[in-house]
Amino acid sequence: MTDKTQLTWPEQLRRDDRELKALTCMAQNLPATRPGVTLGVKDIIDVAGLPTECGSPIHAGQVAARSADCVTLLERAGAVVAGKTVTTEFATTRPGPTCNPLNPAHTPGGSSSGSVAGVAAGLFDWALGTQTAGSVIRPAAYCGIAGFLPSPGVIPRRGVRIMSPTLDRVGVFARDMQGIAAMLEAFPGWSPAAMPDKAPRIAMLPRGVWEDSADEATCRTVLGTADALRDAGAEMTELDDPAPFLEMMEAQKAVMGYEIPRALHRELAEHRDLLSEELRDYCDAALAIPHESYAAALKTADRFRLWIGGVLEGHDAILGPSAAQLAPEGLGWTGDPFVNRIWSLAKLPAVSLPGAAARNGLKAAVQLTTGIGRDGLLCALATRFAPLVAGIAPE
Amino acid sequence: MTDKTQLTWPEQLRRDDRELKALTCMAQNLPATRPGVTLGVKDIIDVAGLPTECGSPIHAGQVAARSADCVTLLERAGAVVAGKTVTTEFATTRPGPTCNPLNPAHTPGGSSSGSVAGVAAGLFDWALGTQTAGSVIRPAAYCGIAGFLPSPGVIPRRGVRIMSPTLDRVGVFARDMQGIAAMLEAFPGWSPAAMPDKAPRIAMLPRGVWEDSADEATCRTVLGTADALRDAGAEMTELDDPAPFLEMMEAQKAVMGYEIPRALHRELAEHRDLLSEELRDYCDAALAIPHESYAAALKTADRFRLWIGGVLEGHDAILGPSAAQLAPEGLGWTGDPFVNRIWSLAKLPAVSLPGAAARNGLKAAVQLTTGIGRDGLLCALATRFAPLVAGIAPE
Repeated sequence: MTDKTQLTWPEQLRRDDRELKALTCMAQNLPATRPGVTLGVKDIIDVAGLPTECGSPIHAGQVAARSADCVTLLERAGAVVAGKTVTTEFATTRPGPTCNPLNPAHTPGGSSSGSVAGVAAGLFDWALGTQTAGSVIRPAAYCGIAGFLPSPGVIPRRGVRIMSPTLDRVGVFARDMQGIAAMLEAFPGWSPAAMPDKAPRIAMLPRGVWEDSADEATCRTVLGTADALRDAGAEMTELDDPAPFLEMMEAQKAVMGYEIPRALHRELAEHRDLLSEELRDYCDAALAIPHESYAAALKTADRFRLWIGGVLEGHDAILGPSAAQLAPEGLGWTGDPFVNRIWSLAKLPAVSLPGAAARNGLKAAVQLTTGIGRDGLLCALATRFAPLVAGIAPE
Repeated sequence: MTDKTQLTWPEQLRRDDRELKALTCMAQNLPATRPGVTLGVKDIIDVAGLPTECGSPIHAGQVAARSADCVTLLERAGAVVAGKTVTTEFATTRPGPTCNPLNPAHTPGGSSSGSVAGVAAGLFDWALGTQTAGSVIRPAAYCGIAGFLPSPGVIPRRGVRIMSPTLDRVGVFARDMQGIAAMLEAFPGWSPAAMPDKAPRIAMLPRGVWEDSADEATCRTVLGTADALRDAGAEMTELDDPAPFLEMMEAQKAVMGYEIPRALHRELAEHRDLLSEELRDYCDAALAIPHESYAAALKTADRFRLWIGGVLEGHDAILGPSAAQLAPEGLGWTGDPFVNRIWSLAKLPAVSLPGAAARNGLKAAVQLTTGIGRDGLLCALATRFAPLVAGIAPE
């Protein structure tokens, strides 16, 4: 429970109202004492009575008549909507003005920028985001909070502006795994699970997938976590063939590229001048992706899901980085979705857990993922491992 | 182009206004001369200014603020919305009052009941429907019109009430394949293709999947079509292992059962008494499906898609029945989705083409399906074959 007067909003961000606006599109007038936990809602998700602007002037002031199911379900669980949060343009790449509460000179990541930054800054307790490429796991990592992307079917998508019907999933943010577990309880597709009876079997993502792209803090945090888990009794192994994972990263680009311009066809046709040049160019190029390439990418995903399903029969989870690097400096770019693309297309549940702070205040993070439908196990593992990860020094 | 005064509405259905209402939830006041083709829109698809009632009293009178993308795109292609059409309750099983224009004592099928009956009766030229199990292909078959269910990504789902995020696809209805081709031109994911240069290679669905359930008219129409295609120069083969197909029929039930109650969670929580007992019971039973069974069913689908993709590399299309039987007598049951379940879960494009009329006025129909993304080829094949199928006598 938080109260507006008690928010641990970093001094740098409190300087004036500008930053508050940067973080929330629209703050409701909340009573001084609020009865429940507070919730930030990414601005591609409808909240009745508030505009859904999708980070675009095209939808400025368009008030939603009805809340998205995910909002209603969290309200039923006691949450009070604190406000809508800044998203990149249509949850793609052009950033809003949000900065990173860990270090305001750095991006909070995207596209769920305001949701993660708001939780990280203590402006609200819980937040909702979505992931097409890496927009739940990556910003959670950049801002040092817990982010959870459940299996398809756990959180309903009704009332969410969908950019990619194949890829988009709703995810949740909280300061810690206790908050995440409390949020997940609200959803009809959720069923909790206990820790495995035996030592958890954790596989590390092949180094060939991520080590060359990762910065030192990220490498130390992932490898340090592997060591810490082994010391804590987990049975650690390392996957060795990067090829299927690298193939998925490319396939995800084809699926996303094929679907996004089609989801935006109305805006492209009717309000082309109000889209950013960046998004217009992306859509124009992506529209050239033939249906055959799209179908081939979906086939790659089918093949990968079957294969990784087999791998995960012998393991409880796969450990890897949540992002390649610490949050990039500047607010002009929200960072690279990187390995997140794999899990978005594979539709596996994933969770991001932050490590300890580096000298510049930023944190690296690890991701754990498991088989579709084993969300309860993933939540149990992450809850158990979070304190270990939080102790991993990145330098 | 049709005019309301010229509609070839069967005498039986014109007796009074009751049947018109049965077919359309809401007819707009159209001018006597309409400039474009007319469009019926299944009542789970939004049309700005008209209610979206989903065949349920829960949503009675709830007016949509904005049209679904599929409606807007057809309007941009010259269509004028003639009205919303009767759907079964939330596009599941409880029928509306619509009857079959080929023989009003029989069901038109569901859940896109009003859309197919309206096209079959000449009330409008085009119609939009959706398929979760068999609700595009089966009613098109029962009412003797052309129905086309494109690959995912061809017709956007925005503005459509989704009952199963995994399964639901929007499909189109017209009296003939020329109408279907004209409708498909309106969609951003559509690209037409020519007939293959060589003799089309058509495989027949294994008889072990369908022959025991099918009535005589259906068997004659499918086998007669196979003969007619061979006579016309197609290279015909017959698939022999029914097991993968039968497994898919069961897997589809698990996916649908898992997702539908979750899509209806708000109605179940807030308006339980306004749901039919049938749907309440279905949801209560389906909510017991564990996430593990759901995940296993999705895995079955992945495996099937890869396998059938290989089969379809050696064939242009697979021929089978669109429905097991002619439209059942009575309006209390909309019929069995049967083999349609396979293709709904496999996400392959499919088309239904009617045969000649039996003595009771009803028609059997064949389905052709092909690989994901080869919709242009499927449309070309169906356009070429439709006159042959229309000549197949069912008795």
